[in-house]
Amino acid sequence: MRAVDVIMKKRDGGALSRDEIRFFVDGVTAGTLPEYQASALLMAILLRGMSAEETAWLTDAMVHSGVRVDLSDIPGVKVDKHSTGGVGDKTSLILAPLAAACGVPVPMMSGRGLGHTGGTLDKLEAIPGFRVDLSLEEMKAALVRTGCAMIGQTAQIAPADKKLYALRDVTGTVESIPLISASIMSKKIAEGIDALVLDVKTGSGAFMKSEADSRRLAESLVSIGNASGVKTEAVITAMDTPLGRAVGNALEVIECIDVLKGGGPPDLTDVSIELTARMLVLGRVADDLAAAEKQARNAIASGAGLERFRQIVQAQGGDARVIDDYSRLPHVAGRHVVTAARGGYLTRLDAELVGRASVALGAGRDRVEDPVDFAVGIMITAKPGDQVRAGDAVLELHYRDRARLETALALATRAVTIGDERPPAARLIVGEVR
Amino acid sequence: MRAVDVIMKKRDGGALSRDEIRFFVDGVTAGTLPEYQASALLMAILLRGMSAEETAWLTDAMVHSGVRVDLSDIPGVKVDKHSTGGVGDKTSLILAPLAAACGVPVPMMSGRGLGHTGGTLDKLEAIPGFRVDLSLEEMKAALVRTGCAMIGQTAQIAPADKKLYALRDVTGTVESIPLISASIMSKKIAEGIDALVLDVKTGSGAFMKSEADSRRLAESLVSIGNASGVKTEAVITAMDTPLGRAVGNALEVIECIDVLKGGGPPDLTDVSIELTARMLVLGRVADDLAAAEKQARNAIASGAGLERFRQIVQAQGGDARVIDDYSRLPHVAGRHVVTAARGGYLTRLDAELVGRASVALGAGRDRVEDPVDFAVGIMITAKPGDQVRAGDAVLELHYRDRARLETALALATRAVTIGDERPPAARLIVGEVR
Repeated sequence: MRAVDVIMKKRDGGALSRDEIRFFVDGVTAGTLPEYQASALLMAILLRGMSAEETAWLTDAMVHSGVRVDLSDIPGVKVDKHSTGGVGDKTSLILAPLAAACGVPVPMMSGRGLGHTGGTLDKLEAIPGFRVDLSLEEMKAALVRTGCAMIGQTAQIAPADKKLYALRDVTGTVESIPLISASIMSKKIAEGIDALVLDVKTGSGAFMKSEADSRRLAESLVSIGNASGVKTEAVITAMDTPLGRAVGNALEVIECIDVLKGGGPPDLTDVSIELTARMLVLGRVADDLAAAEKQARNAIASGAGLERFRQIVQAQGGDARVIDDYSRLPHVAGRHVVTAARGGYLTRLDAELVGRASVALGAGRDRVEDPVDFAVGIMITAKPGDQVRAGDAVLELHYRDRARLETALALATRAVTIGDERPPAARLIVGEVR
Repeated sequence: MRAVDVIMKKRDGGALSRDEIRFFVDGVTAGTLPEYQASALLMAILLRGMSAEETAWLTDAMVHSGVRVDLSDIPGVKVDKHSTGGVGDKTSLILAPLAAACGVPVPMMSGRGLGHTGGTLDKLEAIPGFRVDLSLEEMKAALVRTGCAMIGQTAQIAPADKKLYALRDVTGTVESIPLISASIMSKKIAEGIDALVLDVKTGSGAFMKSEADSRRLAESLVSIGNASGVKTEAVITAMDTPLGRAVGNALEVIECIDVLKGGGPPDLTDVSIELTARMLVLGRVADDLAAAEKQARNAIASGAGLERFRQIVQAQGGDARVIDDYSRLPHVAGRHVVTAARGGYLTRLDAELVGRASVALGAGRDRVEDPVDFAVGIMITAKPGDQVRAGDAVLELHYRDRARLETALALATRAVTIGDERPPAARLIVGEVR
């Protein structure tokens, strides 16, 4: 098989065969396919597309570039959740202990924040001592002990994805639904789960800005998962404005604990409960969504979720005392309040700009190798739909460095729009694909 | 400027700026732009296209990757001809001496055969001693002495093209009109000519199979040439069947000498005269095409063209005695005749298959580094439109090696189609763009 023939076939709009796709992925993984041929093919795929069948084959080839973890010796239906990424999107820290408390084993492999979106691993590491770099054996042990393990991707999981993503990042071939789908699903399938709930974000702060694109991505992801024997469903949720009121690693941990204690913002609670309920049904501990939602809310009310979170933190080496004493979490003294320039209604609080402001403060990273400041971030004191008077606080920036504050302020100020009329209430759950 | 931004702009259908195109070409030439980014951009250009303006900028950047030869100290309007490539396409060896004999200086830089099409350099080298690797100084000296120099591309001419072509060849990005146009025209503009006649081939044996594509390519080439101060026009000529009756290097040299002697096949003579006449008008030694055609035919009738060819061969170190004694050219004894399987009319003699049969005999090359056998080739004894009886000779294969003959025969036999009705006479000159 010649690489150039495979490239020309896709360039001319043809469908690649299973063997051709495997040749491509194996060549990238082994380093035998020159990167200039891989990138030409990636661009042809981006512009010509891939059928559902081709995308499933691509995913399968990427799964087989590494190991597919075997969790069959752990009882129960193993369920994970994956979000396509948002601002203030911290549901994993809530739903994982809730689902585990309700009897569903949750082996969760997460990523780090990149660009304006945050990442679960960074949030967990804001808890002093918390280790996300468990080996597969340690992960299994944690799963048996607490019903949950929250870890980073190991090198054995879909190594082709790491190489392909690095190449896509520098060749303008990131924004392709088949390539995004295969990247996400190869890692999820390889981690050995039985079922998966996807939280596909849509809106200005999401990777997919339009509902139509988000739905297409959700359909692609669900189709691949089900074709690979992982029962998969997707919820499409709004990401025009940050979820909850905290953006930044330690601040978000506090907010998650608040939710598990029965407090916390209603939007964050509602999305977390929705996702948990779907995990409970897929995990066969609830018969339907209504019953599942009730179980999830009960796990909050009874304190079982919070207790499970404490066990997870302890099992992974974290200081569980942070749950009762937030001052044990990293924090900074610097505060700067962004106020309403005029009276009216907050009509818009742009998620991407808030996210970028938080990155500017140091809470996230523009490049994979950048360090993260767990303490800094932004607290949202007014949400879209709220009535404000001139001078009222809208955002509270927690900063360490004055120069960084200046950059962040310029972004944060632009994120706020005040109008005369109350905006229509935004839907939080936009749709589902199953 | 970031390469990934340039790639994404073209990927999304945007027009690149002059600076962005120069950044790309300079980066490829210097080796500072990674090949994986260059190939992703090439694929995006192939699938998204380029405007006439972008293509002109690309050509200009490629010209400036090397030297633009200065021929201003040589008197007269310097005119070259370039063909997009065909089978039996040997007009250069006829029109260069004819135009020179009529007073137009012809600095001609040609290429070698690749795939099923032949190349002028290989044909010239079939003449014992003929040197095509003249330096720029030697080229100028020859131009002054004989009014013509026929040489290969030097390393100083458009080095970006060499690098880009090597990358396009292995990444499925050859078949793009903007990229083909810039590749051809950058070399022609850099060689220091004042005017250019293009022979854009169309049909089954041409690079462009359809008349519409050939016209688009011709328009693109003419537009670039004129924008760069090289007065350019194009003739679109048929390439469904080989031009003339000889295919193979020494065999084609003999046929060219026959034409210069006033013999030779009418189709080859007519196309050569047409191209010469356009060179004479562009070279300002004739007022119009009718007068120019008369001058060109006179140069054959008077023997001036043949005499000029003798001088050119001598000036470049070749054995000019071949002109009077064809046996001094490389030749082989092996002959195999392909006969008509039935009586009727020859309705089709496929140029590409004849070309591939000739390559199979050893007359051409599939890879740049392959050697060429000057002696072997194919003589065409019946042309489309001819009436044949069963058993009549259609092709005569001149072979050296029996195993190669077998491969060539399988191709040559498929090239021949015989039908009951005389096919309509095919147009030789399909159109023009100026």
